[in-house]
Amino acid sequence: MTSTTAAYEARAQEYIDALGTMDAVHPVDRAIVDAWADEVSGPVLDAGCGPGQWTAHLAGRGLDVRGIDLAPRFVEHARATHPGIRFEVASIDELPDADALFGGVLAWFSTIHHSPDRIGVALRGCARALRPGGELLLGFFVGAAPEPFDHAVTRAWRWPVAELTRELDAAGFDVLEAQTRETRGARPVGSLRCERRV
Amino acid sequence: MTSTTAAYEARAQEYIDALGTMDAVHPVDRAIVDAWADEVSGPVLDAGCGPGQWTAHLAGRGLDVRGIDLAPRFVEHARATHPGIRFEVASIDELPDADALFGGVLAWFSTIHHSPDRIGVALRGCARALRPGGELLLGFFVGAAPEPFDHAVTRAWRWPVAELTRELDAAGFDVLEAQTRETRGARPVGSLRCERRV
Repeated sequence: MTSTTAAYEARAQEYIDALGTMDAVHPVDRAIVDAWADEVSGPVLDAGCGPGQWTAHLAGRGLDVRGIDLAPRFVEHARATHPGIRFEVASIDELPDADALFGGVLAWFSTIHHSPDRIGVALRGCARALRPGGELLLGFFVGAAPEPFDHAVTRAWRWPVAELTRELDAAGFDVLEAQTRETRGARPVGSLRCERRV
Repeated sequence: MTSTTAAYEARAQEYIDALGTMDAVHPVDRAIVDAWADEVSGPVLDAGCGPGQWTAHLAGRGLDVRGIDLAPRFVEHARATHPGIRFEVASIDELPDADALFGGVLAWFSTIHHSPDRIGVALRGCARALRPGGELLLGFFVGAAPEPFDHAVTRAWRWPVAELTRELDAAGFDVLEAQTRETRGARPVGSLRCERRV
């Protein structure tokens, strides 16, 4: 178990209580994910699904979706809370038997703990899992430079949109849409919707 | 009639056909406006309402809303299409008898034709129309510097978020939330949600 996974395991219930349902989601984030989901065709992977709230939301919109997370407590909670949806313990870095399987991958704040020298592994993992033309939607923290900060659970990284766009390009993606939001008193966030190059 | 108004008058029907209903709205923009509208209390002004599609949308969500626009053809269309909602020919720069009347002002791409030396007039007009604590939601085109460009109807301006934030501050607003979106093949857009300082 990595130190990041261990940190989530240790605070899983606290995280589930605070963020485990769609009630905790900013309405604009919901619209961003829904707009992406409405364009995706084929099976969808919620990579780094945590307690599974987005997985269940997407299933409720009629998508064929499954979730993975590295933290067994999240997967256990997701299975119990959302029976009928497939959840597994797995890493976004090494998706097993998933080559070109998915039409869409949601990585919603799932790569925030990847340092700049490791982010490429996760993004290439997403690219490999997608069919050509499939779409990745990435949520992340925005900053003026790739730099670490003390996230509630464990160290995370913030990224400029331009820098993450370069990493996505190197992993085989074309960026279709970039969005940012800065709310007073909160960390700036962003999303990048990108297409796996054919 | 200003040259901007004349330009809209000349192409009013074309504009109505292309952008006159909510079908033409990006789903994320709808979520941004709805999230703002859900927090507003008191009467709302759709300033620069064009054909009135947002005015009607907000009325449909239960808001007490009226619309103003400088182009008589837009106001005529809005009145005919959305009877029961009050629309008037008026300028965002000089809102008559509106001092501290509104709980919210929507200026959705309504100040895009204001040059940097005139934007303050519009923003102060919005501030004057709002009750203390009332909220302005501003939609605009984003650029690296305040610079003009050839908009479909007539010359418009793009703004960096930081620069427009300074203009809003000078007009008596605190910015609560800034959002941007850059879609491949489209002009970058942004929104600023701000509160009239008490």
